[in-house]
Amino acid sequence: MTHAPTLTLADIARRLDIDFQGDGDTLIRGLATLKEAGPDQIAFLANRAYLKDLAETRAAAVLLHPEHGKNCPVPQLPIDNPYLGYAQLSQMFDPLEASKQTGVHPTAVVGDNVTLGEGVEIQAHAVIDAGVVLGDRVVIGAGSVVGADSILGDDTRLHANVTVYHGVVIGKRAILHSGCVIGADGFGFAHDGARWHKIAQLGGVVLGDDVEVGSCSSIDRGALGDTLIGNDVKIDSQVQIAHNVRIGDHSALAGCVGIAGSTKVGKHCMLGGGVGLSGHLTIADGVQVTGMSLVTNSIHEPGVYSSGTGAMNNTQWRKNAVRFKQLDEIAKRLTRLEKSSRDSA
Amino acid sequence: MTHAPTLTLADIARRLDIDFQGDGDTLIRGLATLKEAGPDQIAFLANRAYLKDLAETRAAAVLLHPEHGKNCPVPQLPIDNPYLGYAQLSQMFDPLEASKQTGVHPTAVVGDNVTLGEGVEIQAHAVIDAGVVLGDRVVIGAGSVVGADSILGDDTRLHANVTVYHGVVIGKRAILHSGCVIGADGFGFAHDGARWHKIAQLGGVVLGDDVEVGSCSSIDRGALGDTLIGNDVKIDSQVQIAHNVRIGDHSALAGCVGIAGSTKVGKHCMLGGGVGLSGHLTIADGVQVTGMSLVTNSIHEPGVYSSGTGAMNNTQWRKNAVRFKQLDEIAKRLTRLEKSSRDSA
Amino acid sequence: MTHAPTLTLADIARRLDIDFQGDGDTLIRGLATLKEAGPDQIAFLANRAYLKDLAETRAAAVLLHPEHGKNCPVPQLPIDNPYLGYAQLSQMFDPLEASKQTGVHPTAVVGDNVTLGEGVEIQAHAVIDAGVVLGDRVVIGAGSVVGADSILGDDTRLHANVTVYHGVVIGKRAILHSGCVIGADGFGFAHDGARWHKIAQLGGVVLGDDVEVGSCSSIDRGALGDTLIGNDVKIDSQVQIAHNVRIGDHSALAGCVGIAGSTKVGKHCMLGGGVGLSGHLTIADGVQVTGMSLVTNSIHEPGVYSSGTGAMNNTQWRKNAVRFKQLDEIAKRLTRLEKSSRDSA
Repeated sequence: MTHAPTLTLADIARRLDIDFQGDGDTLIRGLATLKEAGPDQIAFLANRAYLKDLAETRAAAVLLHPEHGKNCPVPQLPIDNPYLGYAQLSQMFDPLEASKQTGVHPTAVVGDNVTLGEGVEIQAHAVIDAGVVLGDRVVIGAGSVVGADSILGDDTRLHANVTVYHGVVIGKRAILHSGCVIGADGFGFAHDGARWHKIAQLGGVVLGDDVEVGSCSSIDRGALGDTLIGNDVKIDSQVQIAHNVRIGDHSALAGCVGIAGSTKVGKHCMLGGGVGLSGHLTIADGVQVTGMSLVTNSIHEPGVYSSGTGAMNNTQWRKNAVRFKQLDEIAKRLTRLEKSSRDSA
Repeated sequence: MTHAPTLTLADIARRLDIDFQGDGDTLIRGLATLKEAGPDQIAFLANRAYLKDLAETRAAAVLLHPEHGKNCPVPQLPIDNPYLGYAQLSQMFDPLEASKQTGVHPTAVVGDNVTLGEGVEIQAHAVIDAGVVLGDRVVIGAGSVVGADSILGDDTRLHANVTVYHGVVIGKRAILHSGCVIGADGFGFAHDGARWHKIAQLGGVVLGDDVEVGSCSSIDRGALGDTLIGNDVKIDSQVQIAHNVRIGDHSALAGCVGIAGSTKVGKHCMLGGGVGLSGHLTIADGVQVTGMSLVTNSIHEPGVYSSGTGAMNNTQWRKNAVRFKQLDEIAKRLTRLEKSSRDSA
Repeated sequence: MTHAPTLTLADIARRLDIDFQGDGDTLIRGLATLKEAGPDQIAFLANRAYLKDLAETRAAAVLLHPEHGKNCPVPQLPIDNPYLGYAQLSQMFDPLEASKQTGVHPTAVVGDNVTLGEGVEIQAHAVIDAGVVLGDRVVIGAGSVVGADSILGDDTRLHANVTVYHGVVIGKRAILHSGCVIGADGFGFAHDGARWHKIAQLGGVVLGDDVEVGSCSSIDRGALGDTLIGNDVKIDSQVQIAHNVRIGDHSALAGCVGIAGSTKVGKHCMLGGGVGLSGHLTIADGVQVTGMSLVTNSIHEPGVYSSGTGAMNNTQWRKNAVRFKQLDEIAKRLTRLEKSSRDSA
């Protein structure tokens, strides 16, 4: 069963390194929004849009910036970055952490020469192929498969039905969600004029520390060298990362992003949902691309980039979309008209 | 084995509540198009485009609107909504329904305190964690995993290799296709200026009755509250639904749709393939969005919405796409020219 | 364990049908780029951009076009199409081929009336339903599920956690990557004015010979007839192919492509990453569509097609995207101005 723990307010304040003034014995069973929190829950104020809810909150205590303390009707947990405080607090109530177990389920299949760290948990029907190395406290979810000779760092968790191919290296504290696939073949074929010949994908995949990969996402293995995902890279669901892509540390990729082969994304980049990057590009550090934009050229400067057109009523859109197809002609007509206007002036 | 049943024409007419005139003893083994149906199959006319095929059909009988009856060379099954009749008829020949079994396969792993309804079928290598409740006649496909404390309503079917995380609630008669993942963590992180801190996703997912989820689709669990999918919502393959999204009853989402966090979609909405909705939007009831449109603002009125540009020959497209980047300048030049034209008039 | 074989240079030359001049006894353990290859690896020159690396290479030998032979400092393997040679060479070092085993793992579940060809390998926790036929040397990866009565041709490989539904036919030498799903229900519903009624998807899926399907891709079964994928069709990861689609021989679909129901794609087509095709279209042979284009009309001529707008700085994009919504009005204003200019001339 998954049950979140109960903590006292004093415990929580201590773990958040906050100097709490008030009754520390209050029992806390979770967290909620200012509006919905009850007397055994902590709320947080991390966005001014919710300031209006502060006066009416029934929370046991509120995590907030000191500047809002005077408006808080209940005990407060003052902190400079309340959103970060919320993140840390949320982890204290994670039922998965509380329900962690140790040991290899009798239905799991573990191959030869597998190295298991201390406190490893391998759940039902998981398959660990020969030569795999699992660090301390690694969790392998039910039905997950780890291919031969792959290496998973300490405290990494695979949820149920994850697939890691052979020869993949994953760092520490990684979280891989169900249905994601790490190390499938990149998409490489040579054409002989009539048909395709497969290029065996002989590289691997290396994920750094603190990487998270969402459900049903794919990170393909390299053709020759490795596909490289840096430290602290966060990848959402339904993302496709092709062979030999490199993602710099601390970058975040939202859902449905697709990155074609050999593209290098810098550090601290943020790609919005559904963004597509063509192959063999270089994207500088600190680039943000807004949702569903297509990037076909390298980007050398940090900044925000976009493509596409915003949604509008279909009737109007049809008229404008037709004009898009005439756009070059429209521009030329305008130039001619400007010229004739100048000539006649 | 999967074998469709054989029915008589009279049986079928009775189950469709049609007053059939003719030889009801004809044995029917399936259905097909007007053009391809043989003498043991039923055909249907639901679209005027196929009216031309009616005169030549060899079907045992045709499901059609009474207005077309006089042109039908074979026995007819008159019905006001022939497409709906086709849907109902198709279900009579579903081989999966015919091959349904009962019982728990010896290789399945069922945790403590699991409640199994009557007639439940749990297939090979499925894993049901502790505290799960399965309603009557639930089917859990081979290799599927249901996380702790999740609840599945009567007659719900998980195909093979589905993953349901802990604490998920699924209504009655849901169909979840292979590879879909319900309840993985939403994509939530707080940034401390240097790196990301995970926000534990403490909410759940609630799916209403009669929901269908396509293969390899993801519905993430909420950060605090739940992600909510209404009754009779139909979700195609490769769809991504982020944390705390709400989808109203009877809405349909085609393949590759992506919906960012906390967006609310109304009832009876239809999202075309590849549509993207930004986060924190409100989409009114009855909104349709055409394929691959990006919606970045709330939509308050029912209607059809679109974005993007239609495909064209690449040579022409290149010219027009370059002009798109000059569009603001083109508009300003036009305004200047209009002004100078007025001034000189 | 996955270990690539060691071959002699003479072996390799013989298998590539190259007349090699030099010391054929050199032991070769793999291949690499010109820059990175060591003295036990073969390099290749398939793209003039890398010609600069030839003079410095330390490779045991280089696969190259005869025209570059005079610049090669190490033994050479001359071949007309070096990229094709690279593909063939890469397969010689594929560790999966080298580690292939035979037999049914004791944890695999094999149903009644299953036909197993010679040299079949069924890995741990795989499930083969009743009536399935597996050709010679078929490999079924760990945790994969093959539904009743499906047929897989000789030398076809399912990686781990693949799902094939009932009644699917797959040709010879197919490769299906983890997480892909073949034969889930197409997205078909009839509306009765208030709610949806499921149309049972009674067709199947037929994949030709030499088809590859990437990780987490979906190919849905037909509503009545079959979804048809031709010979030598290559499908990348995260692709969605809806019911009753037909793809012609030798076509290649990059990652995240989505194709709606009943569309027919010709032979030798290439669809870029994220391309969307609407339903019921016909796409001619030899059509290429660039990344993330949306195609809503049939294409009757071979050639390259595109839609969308390239990415730009967000500040500029915002200005231009606003103008897109005024585009029809801009065009009309231009026409009026041209007229008034002509009138006043």
